[in-house]
Amino acid sequence: MSNRSQRFMKLGAFLPAPGHHIAAWRHPDSQPAGGLDFDYYRSLALTAERGKFDMIFLSDGAGIRTHYKDEDELSRWGRMVHFEPLTLLSALAVVTKHIGLTATASTTYNEPFHIARKFASLDYLSGGRSGWNVVTSVTDLEAQNFNLERQPTHAVRYARAREFMVVAAKLWDSWEDDCFLYDKAAGRFFEPDKLHIPYHDGEFFKVRGPLNVARPPQGYPVIVQAGSSEDGQDFAAQWAEVVFTAQQTLEQAQAFYSGIKAQLSRYGRQPDELVVMPGVFPVVGRTSMEAEEKYEQLQALVDPAVGMGLLTGLLGDVDLSDYPVDGPLPELPVTEGSTSRQQLVYDQARHQGLTIRELYLSVSGARGHRFILGSPEEIADQLEEWFIHRGADGFNIMPPYLPGGLDDFVDLVVPVLQKRGLFRNEYEGGTLRENLGLKRPVNQHLLVKG
Amino acid sequence: MSNRSQRFMKLGAFLPAPGHHIAAWRHPDSQPAGGLDFDYYRSLALTAERGKFDMIFLSDGAGIRTHYKDEDELSRWGRMVHFEPLTLLSALAVVTKHIGLTATASTTYNEPFHIARKFASLDYLSGGRSGWNVVTSVTDLEAQNFNLERQPTHAVRYARAREFMVVAAKLWDSWEDDCFLYDKAAGRFFEPDKLHIPYHDGEFFKVRGPLNVARPPQGYPVIVQAGSSEDGQDFAAQWAEVVFTAQQTLEQAQAFYSGIKAQLSRYGRQPDELVVMPGVFPVVGRTSMEAEEKYEQLQALVDPAVGMGLLTGLLGDVDLSDYPVDGPLPELPVTEGSTSRQQLVYDQARHQGLTIRELYLSVSGARGHRFILGSPEEIADQLEEWFIHRGADGFNIMPPYLPGGLDDFVDLVVPVLQKRGLFRNEYEGGTLRENLGLKRPVNQHLLVKG
Repeated sequence: MSNRSQRFMKLGAFLPAPGHHIAAWRHPDSQPAGGLDFDYYRSLALTAERGKFDMIFLSDGAGIRTHYKDEDELSRWGRMVHFEPLTLLSALAVVTKHIGLTATASTTYNEPFHIARKFASLDYLSGGRSGWNVVTSVTDLEAQNFNLERQPTHAVRYARAREFMVVAAKLWDSWEDDCFLYDKAAGRFFEPDKLHIPYHDGEFFKVRGPLNVARPPQGYPVIVQAGSSEDGQDFAAQWAEVVFTAQQTLEQAQAFYSGIKAQLSRYGRQPDELVVMPGVFPVVGRTSMEAEEKYEQLQALVDPAVGMGLLTGLLGDVDLSDYPVDGPLPELPVTEGSTSRQQLVYDQARHQGLTIRELYLSVSGARGHRFILGSPEEIADQLEEWFIHRGADGFNIMPPYLPGGLDDFVDLVVPVLQKRGLFRNEYEGGTLRENLGLKRPVNQHLLVKG
Repeated sequence: MSNRSQRFMKLGAFLPAPGHHIAAWRHPDSQPAGGLDFDYYRSLALTAERGKFDMIFLSDGAGIRTHYKDEDELSRWGRMVHFEPLTLLSALAVVTKHIGLTATASTTYNEPFHIARKFASLDYLSGGRSGWNVVTSVTDLEAQNFNLERQPTHAVRYARAREFMVVAAKLWDSWEDDCFLYDKAAGRFFEPDKLHIPYHDGEFFKVRGPLNVARPPQGYPVIVQAGSSEDGQDFAAQWAEVVFTAQQTLEQAQAFYSGIKAQLSRYGRQPDELVVMPGVFPVVGRTSMEAEEKYEQLQALVDPAVGMGLLTGLLGDVDLSDYPVDGPLPELPVTEGSTSRQQLVYDQARHQGLTIRELYLSVSGARGHRFILGSPEEIADQLEEWFIHRGADGFNIMPPYLPGGLDDFVDLVVPVLQKRGLFRNEYEGGTLRENLGLKRPVNQHLLVKG
């Protein structure tokens, strides 16, 4: 036990209002207007911090990404308006002390100067608790908010993302950590030799710099990434410090875990420089029967039109309306969306012989992530198994509905994990990096200086 | 007195760390690292709110805009790293209750979807206290952070800005105010007829929408604008609800005031739909002699290289290094920067027969804005004169250094203004619009419906 307790699992609280289940907003205890209610998010953040979570994780889209055929169908969904994550996390930085704050931002529809700057600003506001979930976006609906008809190809999005990271790192490294002198008498604000103007000139970006924010407290925000395609894994091997991934079985998780860690060496990195956190959708009851009842309550609230729309999105914008809902999933083309997730959902349907209806019901909660259900001990068993057997370094917890699903996890499951020596009783450090066990990146100009 | 007290002056607190005077960071009481210190800004915000200011105003650049010939010269400036305003104001929203929060963002280097969304998010975080200072940016240095060598022409920047506003308004009006039903039983999140997808297709922007934030509490954030050129005034007449302007004399201020208000009718607007707020740089002492001493203390700290750089920037990137510093200002070309400010500074030099050195010292504090100095009563007299004689509806106060210059204004000048019935004792409303006396804009789709 004492050896095992040296390695704590890491936990993310993935908190979209009003929860992850597609019918969460219809749950009697959910707050459907929570997406734009700061008191709601303040309360969620304080609960997650009470549960010693490493970070709050906010997904995001540069627009509504829901697949719908008309406004009437869209009105059956319950999550189309919410805070923009960088503004929300800046506000949450003030009311929290320890928990990390990870926002999603797209490299496809943003400029590196703005993104590098906003995350640096958040890192200062939070005293070194910022994380950036780097996404390349996956829908044409988002592209259409930025002068495009269709999103760039998967390959182009990743090529742009790779250069985006190079530019962001150059901007964060503009000023060495000890650059600022504040010497009032000599009139010298900073040490000129410790300013490095990027003058980046590449394929996608020409960015002069320097950044107008000093080097962030963490050096760089913690880089999180969720792409599991071949391009996605290569990107992760170079840049990611946390990988958020969808894995269904321990064997798949172990293969992904060892595979992605092995790829780090290609970029001169060590296995412990990457934290692997599969997504987990936990339905927690005081007993497994109570958990079953909670799940059935949500499943009974799924609107068929919303279920079909969800499936359409997960499969990459394919139109299933011509196929019988109680028949099998047809053969599908490869699209330019999230290729790894499409394959995962497709394989699940084939493997389990599911009809279209059974398939959308099966993804209404976890959406392709791992679905676990049971008593606190049973939930802890399932997390422990993957953690001990190197399928995961931790988990991004996706509560079915909020705030209840988060309360259940914090009040019922966390104490079991702590008792087993699997999870911290107190935060280890002051920054997100310190809590995740990640080193602070050295300024690239010091590496050159040697 | 009773009639006059019906009209209160409006006050903005323009708060760049470490203050407006170019040598502020060298002042013994200034905090040169304040630009990235949240506790510093929290304290400033609470002081401004204690003084019943309408709003905090944060200027911004999409990059360092300082004019310098090398890193050594740049190191003599004291304000090149600071928080990004939208993240900072989101955090300040949590620690304040009444004061408005106005951030600058450029229409030239941003996309309307991101900007409309972030201000809508800030408006929700603050309960309706957001303001957007719309700028088109004025330097090539910023353009060079966004794939360009030079900034677009003044005319192109304004054409883009006008379309940008049209798109932003369409996005804010995507959802009618009473669109959201949250009807859990019927599975109906919103009323389909009250969603208006923009499908904007224009010269600069093609933006589908809808926004993924509901209509802001204020309808739109308060629109602030500072351009005083012909293009700038036309833009203000159409869109601005607060104009921040640089005026030197009462006669000039009155001409600007009546001129800009007269232009509103071109866009079907009434004179009281625009609040005119000249910038004022106040040096406040308990006596006028103490004020003189405070000013001289700052003037003595001006580094000649910094003074020359400031002048170069105000005059639109012109190189003055070949001209003797104690000689007259040469004839200058018109550039693509801030044309109105160039003219103002140029006229000042000509009118007063200033040498280059005298000119940069004269703008080291107010930078072309109105400079007033004296005891609290004398300061109040000067504000009252412009306010009573319709040179201003209020003032954007530019403290020489922080926090001292703001403390002086709040503790010494505000009580005099209140005693004279010129300024509020308590906030009138809960939103920035209510405090400024501005109406909440009606959704354009309701205007069409009639």
